[in-house]
Amino acid sequence: MTATVESVDPRTGQVVEVVAHEFTPDEVDARCVAAAAVAPVLDDAGPSGRARLLRLMADELDTDSDKIVELADRESALGTTRLRGELARSSFQLRLFADVLDDGAYLNVTIDHADPDAAPAPRPDLRRTLIPLGPVGVFGASNFPLAFSVPGGDTASALAAGCPVVVKAHPAHPATSQRCLEALQRGAVGAGLPTDVVSLVHGGPAGADLVRHPAIRAVGFTGSLAGGRFLFDLAGARPDPIPFYGELGSLNPVVLTAGAVAERAEEIAAGLLTSYTNGVGQFCTKPGVVFVPAGPDGQRLAVALAEGTRGYEPGAMLAERIRDAFRAGSDARAGLAGVTELASSSAPAGAGFFAPARLVSIAARTLVDSTDADTLDTVFDECFGPLTVLVTYADGTELLAALDRLPGSLTATVHAAAGEAPTAVLDLLRPRAGRLVWNGYPTGVAVAWATQHGGPYPSSTDVRSTSVGAAAIERWLRPIAYQSTPDPLLPPALREANPWGLPRRIDGVLQQPGRVTGA
Amino acid sequence: MTATVESVDPRTGQVVEVVAHEFTPDEVDARCVAAAAVAPVLDDAGPSGRARLLRLMADELDTDSDKIVELADRESALGTTRLRGELARSSFQLRLFADVLDDGAYLNVTIDHADPDAAPAPRPDLRRTLIPLGPVGVFGASNFPLAFSVPGGDTASALAAGCPVVVKAHPAHPATSQRCLEALQRGAVGAGLPTDVVSLVHGGPAGADLVRHPAIRAVGFTGSLAGGRFLFDLAGARPDPIPFYGELGSLNPVVLTAGAVAERAEEIAAGLLTSYTNGVGQFCTKPGVVFVPAGPDGQRLAVALAEGTRGYEPGAMLAERIRDAFRAGSDARAGLAGVTELASSSAPAGAGFFAPARLVSIAARTLVDSTDADTLDTVFDECFGPLTVLVTYADGTELLAALDRLPGSLTATVHAAAGEAPTAVLDLLRPRAGRLVWNGYPTGVAVAWATQHGGPYPSSTDVRSTSVGAAAIERWLRPIAYQSTPDPLLPPALREANPWGLPRRIDGVLQQPGRVTGA
Repeated sequence: MTATVESVDPRTGQVVEVVAHEFTPDEVDARCVAAAAVAPVLDDAGPSGRARLLRLMADELDTDSDKIVELADRESALGTTRLRGELARSSFQLRLFADVLDDGAYLNVTIDHADPDAAPAPRPDLRRTLIPLGPVGVFGASNFPLAFSVPGGDTASALAAGCPVVVKAHPAHPATSQRCLEALQRGAVGAGLPTDVVSLVHGGPAGADLVRHPAIRAVGFTGSLAGGRFLFDLAGARPDPIPFYGELGSLNPVVLTAGAVAERAEEIAAGLLTSYTNGVGQFCTKPGVVFVPAGPDGQRLAVALAEGTRGYEPGAMLAERIRDAFRAGSDARAGLAGVTELASSSAPAGAGFFAPARLVSIAARTLVDSTDADTLDTVFDECFGPLTVLVTYADGTELLAALDRLPGSLTATVHAAAGEAPTAVLDLLRPRAGRLVWNGYPTGVAVAWATQHGGPYPSSTDVRSTSVGAAAIERWLRPIAYQSTPDPLLPPALREANPWGLPRRIDGVLQQPGRVTGA
Repeated sequence: MTATVESVDPRTGQVVEVVAHEFTPDEVDARCVAAAAVAPVLDDAGPSGRARLLRLMADELDTDSDKIVELADRESALGTTRLRGELARSSFQLRLFADVLDDGAYLNVTIDHADPDAAPAPRPDLRRTLIPLGPVGVFGASNFPLAFSVPGGDTASALAAGCPVVVKAHPAHPATSQRCLEALQRGAVGAGLPTDVVSLVHGGPAGADLVRHPAIRAVGFTGSLAGGRFLFDLAGARPDPIPFYGELGSLNPVVLTAGAVAERAEEIAAGLLTSYTNGVGQFCTKPGVVFVPAGPDGQRLAVALAEGTRGYEPGAMLAERIRDAFRAGSDARAGLAGVTELASSSAPAGAGFFAPARLVSIAARTLVDSTDADTLDTVFDECFGPLTVLVTYADGTELLAALDRLPGSLTATVHAAAGEAPTAVLDLLRPRAGRLVWNGYPTGVAVAWATQHGGPYPSSTDVRSTSVGAAAIERWLRPIAYQSTPDPLLPPALREANPWGLPRRIDGVLQQPGRVTGA
């Protein structure tokens, strides 16, 4: 007998129902083989067929939103307001990728006509575009049961690219995963496509089997550093290594200039409080470390943030394992030599997975001078949950020395006063982040054309990619060129007459035709 | 004492001179640290400064072409005609990337203006572009002492992207490498940039040190499967894994339809002879296996190709190790059960690294039915050198069964008669190749905008990339987004006024302004 997969309510710690069982290797194999079998069908549907698929999937999610949100709230304790927003974001995301498909520029069509007089040598007709990699494995994240799970960004972008998806459900929300799968599969039926374009497996060993399966051509993962690195290593150790897009852990440093705290210490404290405690601190973009100038203005900020922290209404974390890891991680930080605990909130006792918010501080000088490598490593490592570390700096030299030790993050944030230009700070943050935020907060990732959600290791295992926004479709594509091929044998994207009305680069020149409709 | 690096003449097998010594770890470290130090300078030069750099480097190569070609011929035995062409290709390649920089579309600038009314949530101002990864390690290839070595594609595309380059010189042509380095560094001086934008290390251990060095942010490699996989694994095992673009081994299957051989058996035989023996068979795109229909027309082709093979004028291979590997590899194929040797040429005795051309054949049925996995693995593995395998198929079923077992290749080629549409063949080849060639030969890679040189593993370790052509610049870039950042603090590419006159996507719409000159 394989182990059962149970749906647990984090507010009570109780098992509510048994949803599934952990998949055997044969069951994982069946899902992967089925995904490979439908890959050509999804590819042949073309951008317009897949745009229709994504829009129908979005509609099905919207239609079933009451039940999906109810289940997601029961399994995640994130609250129905947040989860309604997250579901709206998920269906918006599916529709954005439909727009990306309608636009067609993502295919990057490049045509060089034959040129017998070309330098340095005669050139045959060459036509290049992007094609789907094949079936993709997607690991649902604990902290976004919708937007980074079954109906999430990786699923949306992979289906858009033409890649069938096998999702490894996160054990913290199996019932939500199952319910969302059914909605997506109804969308597939509506689009006249096989339901196997998206499927689900349960269980930790099934995840490893998925990454190793020969039919799987790429993997998307959002989760912990340890789990992600383990799977990254598996993907790289395959006889045929495959791309592995892991989002592991991110510190998301925030730098406050002296001018910023002089101007608006209390306002920034309020913003930081929301940013580091929202969703019980369970955001990949949670600000984990805040650089604050020493002195009265910085003090005002620390006092206000401490007061806010003490008044924080505790929430249940996503899972028992996550709450336990937060307890251990926050205790470890609070217990470091040189660290002061400025404030913590209360948390109810009982069987639910509640956790207090905690605010600690350390001097930049202590941090940088620490001969104990552990202090730096611990403070500059993600602590998943409602904790942030204030690092107080005496001057610019201390600040820059500390910034120079920062690991890669998804984001880095600067708060400055009007007219300030802290270019030395930006120069140190830029190589360490995927998104630079000015006078704002890192939590809250817009789903848009210009979105970048991914950064230097360990925040991403592949810094060249984004998991959110229109460019995420690039994860699942690879180039192919056709040489001297007769027009009827070319894929439509590469035909001379441009039946899809795509923007193209022809003989070195970008061309953007008026869109042809109905072609 | 470290080992010396000797320049050997393949035609005589004699050491001509000692060029360098194998680099110590400290010497490799010094090159990498210097590369990191100049990375911001190269980035700050901007696309226009780097375009100037690349054009001056090309000029310096052209100016020194006589001496470079003389050295390259002495070290590779590839002949001065071929090497003059290869040098012209290398300087053309540098100039193509200068054009890519002038064009600017490669920066993929995407701007979403702030929108408080955006669905599903208000959106801040977001601006996304690509920035250089940082210093890059490039491994020179044995078989292209110029176009895939010090002044080759990876160097050109990495410098274009803004990444300093540390080249690991191939031991088969250290003097050529040194001479080319000097030309490139003169170009850097001419452009007012530090010579450390490109440097050189020698020795096998130095290569491993390079891949492991913390300052190195990506690696380009062209070489053997064993060596490439070893370095790929090193890159993945780093505390911070980095992109590794390896071009390892490629079979480059060619399929001849019944119609093709009926129409022009002798013409195709002549083309194949050139393609598989040119450069002593030492092309990564050499056709390693040719599917020929059984019957009289296929026979005509085999007879003509055998005759051509017997008349082949043998050349010296690049290195003793390569010649020895070819001897062993071609003997292994000729000795397989079911394999017939159709023809071989003579090769001079003596100390030079000469090798005969060899033509062998096997029935598709024997290949597919082989219970000895070794037969399939051996026939479908690259044999570097002047050997190709004819696989004779009795019918379409046999052909498709054999194609379905093919590994990934850089290229796949089909020869058909006018009007034929072998779609089932193309459907099997497409997932197995990066470039599909119609009625042509896989050798000869055009350097152009639409070039794709890279394919499924093992032909590339990263199927998403190309090592040749304009798109190769993407290897060395990563996205970054700026959120709500004041215009003066944005990089020029992202400023509202578009000082570089770049094509941009603004609020979801592609825009291509008239080019602003002199901005």
